[in-house]
Amino acid sequence: MMTTECVLLRDVRPWGAELTDILIRDGHIAAISPGQIAPAEADMIDGAGAIVLPGLVEAHTHLDKTLWGMGWRPYQAGPALGDKIDTERRLRAEWDVDPHRQSLRQALLSLGHGSTAIRSHVDIDTDWGLAGFEGVAQTRADLADQIDMQIVAFPQSGLLKRPGTLDLMQEALTQGADVVGGLDPCSMDRDPKGHLDAVFGLAERHAKPIDIHLHEPDELGAFSMELILERVRAHGMQGQVTISHAFCLGMPDRDRARALIAALAEARIHIATVATPYRPVPSAGDLRAAGVTLCAGSDGIRDCWGPYGNGDMLERAMHLGLRNNLRRDEDVEHALRCCTYAGAEVMALADYGLKIGCRADLVLVDAETVAHAVVSYPPRKLVLKAGRVVARDGRAGMAAP
Amino acid sequence: MMTTECVLLRDVRPWGAELTDILIRDGHIAAISPGQIAPAEADMIDGAGAIVLPGLVEAHTHLDKTLWGMGWRPYQAGPALGDKIDTERRLRAEWDVDPHRQSLRQALLSLGHGSTAIRSHVDIDTDWGLAGFEGVAQTRADLADQIDMQIVAFPQSGLLKRPGTLDLMQEALTQGADVVGGLDPCSMDRDPKGHLDAVFGLAERHAKPIDIHLHEPDELGAFSMELILERVRAHGMQGQVTISHAFCLGMPDRDRARALIAALAEARIHIATVATPYRPVPSAGDLRAAGVTLCAGSDGIRDCWGPYGNGDMLERAMHLGLRNNLRRDEDVEHALRCCTYAGAEVMALADYGLKIGCRADLVLVDAETVAHAVVSYPPRKLVLKAGRVVARDGRAGMAAP
Repeated sequence: MMTTECVLLRDVRPWGAELTDILIRDGHIAAISPGQIAPAEADMIDGAGAIVLPGLVEAHTHLDKTLWGMGWRPYQAGPALGDKIDTERRLRAEWDVDPHRQSLRQALLSLGHGSTAIRSHVDIDTDWGLAGFEGVAQTRADLADQIDMQIVAFPQSGLLKRPGTLDLMQEALTQGADVVGGLDPCSMDRDPKGHLDAVFGLAERHAKPIDIHLHEPDELGAFSMELILERVRAHGMQGQVTISHAFCLGMPDRDRARALIAALAEARIHIATVATPYRPVPSAGDLRAAGVTLCAGSDGIRDCWGPYGNGDMLERAMHLGLRNNLRRDEDVEHALRCCTYAGAEVMALADYGLKIGCRADLVLVDAETVAHAVVSYPPRKLVLKAGRVVARDGRAGMAAP
Repeated sequence: MMTTECVLLRDVRPWGAELTDILIRDGHIAAISPGQIAPAEADMIDGAGAIVLPGLVEAHTHLDKTLWGMGWRPYQAGPALGDKIDTERRLRAEWDVDPHRQSLRQALLSLGHGSTAIRSHVDIDTDWGLAGFEGVAQTRADLADQIDMQIVAFPQSGLLKRPGTLDLMQEALTQGADVVGGLDPCSMDRDPKGHLDAVFGLAERHAKPIDIHLHEPDELGAFSMELILERVRAHGMQGQVTISHAFCLGMPDRDRARALIAALAEARIHIATVATPYRPVPSAGDLRAAGVTLCAGSDGIRDCWGPYGNGDMLERAMHLGLRNNLRRDEDVEHALRCCTYAGAEVMALADYGLKIGCRADLVLVDAETVAHAVVSYPPRKLVLKAGRVVARDGRAGMAAP
């Protein structure tokens, strides 16, 4: 890892544009122009014509629960959501899924693929207590100079139905959780008003944003979404609430979905998606047309919930493009914007981007165009965080535990 | 490329089973047992514990139309099927999409990923004549000892509505096309009876199997499927007809879909899928439960129809698993069976598999289990065709043009 304060990145193409040089000083982009003379103290990096992208943003994952690096563990749960949750609680203990070790593994995996920012939901429940939060918070500290990490205090096993969870959520927020989580207000706690009042109450008390998992389909999810909309308005939380998955927006009644989307736009509620191929999902095109910010994430990666995933947000952009039938270059690029700029907006990252003054969180990838990078997701040549090289050829510099 | 007649493949795990050695003689698997003594004349290959799979089967693609290696070409067509077809016919001429060069490029790309058998639809139309067929037939000859290639004479621009196409189809079959193609009997030719009678007539005259593209959704597709079922019974073509895509089987009325699937099973009609994430698709689980063979393919790869795809059938197994929400190891393995054994059955490949006597079409991949290989799709270490090494580390030995 380089520690110099000045780096000249030669011959790169910002977001696929013309070849240029990027001068980085004190971790920020100081100049962008071709044929720059390197300052004497500068480290030189030859981009060799690579496309440079802003750091990828993993806006929805579960760092605490991956089994990555623990040997292959066949999926065991039944199909129902409740069974998945219960099976995971059981196996987490049986298998010693250490949240610090596991979150560090996944975070470094993601960094190798170019994610310089990660928002992770972390289970808070009465069995697990704050162990998950503490482990991921340790990883957040370990990687503080490599990844912007946000922790969502996430009541995976229910917020009200397991008394004591609300206190634990409060404690996690006091100890540094960044975001208040929530989950399926109707189907999980069987008390949507109670669940959402608690979530918004926590957010107000701790002055934190909200990110709610909403798997509920069709009209049930739409009802929960309406309750969220009402509270965003009442609490003046426009721009500070994300709804993750929002499968209900994939409902067959497209007019109803678009009316909900219009209300989301008005309340500046963001959507986070995984582009799940086996469930109805929000239409990227409809959200874009209405001006709703759509960010993306890997969701769980090789955990008790399923074996898929690799933490590559460039490949996720491909999934997002394919899921939404995006074919034109400009549309395929939009899929990547969801995995970069939109995620940065949702995470409220300061100085994000490829302009002068932005922090030099940069990803180099060999491709002809940005759309080409999305559909081919080649290994990342180089990843810089605040101007320092943190990954090369698809692998983070720091060794995983 | 090795030319020896005897190879000892040491320390491999057939379909993820216990470590063993595989002796290959004259291109076929002669023995499978651990700790074999290498015959003096044998070439030795150290599998180093890799999983060995039978050659992957690309059962549905379009080798003649890929733009792979031609530089990035942004997608240009409108959303309608007809516009895609017309745009492609125009660009194919403008861009000099040479079917021999392009099919060779894609076939070698696929071979690098371990596909030792490919069924390719090839456009036959009155503009293009037999140029596509001739180019792909040349590639088939070029790679005769590396890939089992079947050509489907495919009336992409309609069979009846462009007079002369039927004669061209006949000519292609006379010159060595392996399979009679068809396309959307209602929506394409606007004459489902005429279209299907022509297709089945060609098949009967030339004693060839059939592979029909059926994009028609819902009840329209179901109607076309019924017409196909009637003709399979009437012509005694059980086991010789494949329906590609069959989006109608993803219809909302699951009982109706399952009744169709039961009829397909009875007529031994196969289904080929791409596991398209943005359209309803046949359920892999329902087909499996009914005993219908489901094979898989990449469809078009980076062509005038869209920018996605890479020809990797192990990654396609992942898409198939994800699209069908397959999580248990046994189910994830089934997705790979669709991309191996099922494809071999549809292509009627002789001596396919991992048993003694089978042809040594083998793929080595580093993974803990077969399910792990599917979800991680690492580069193929080695690909053998009839016992000869034809690809290493994800790349074919033969250079692409």
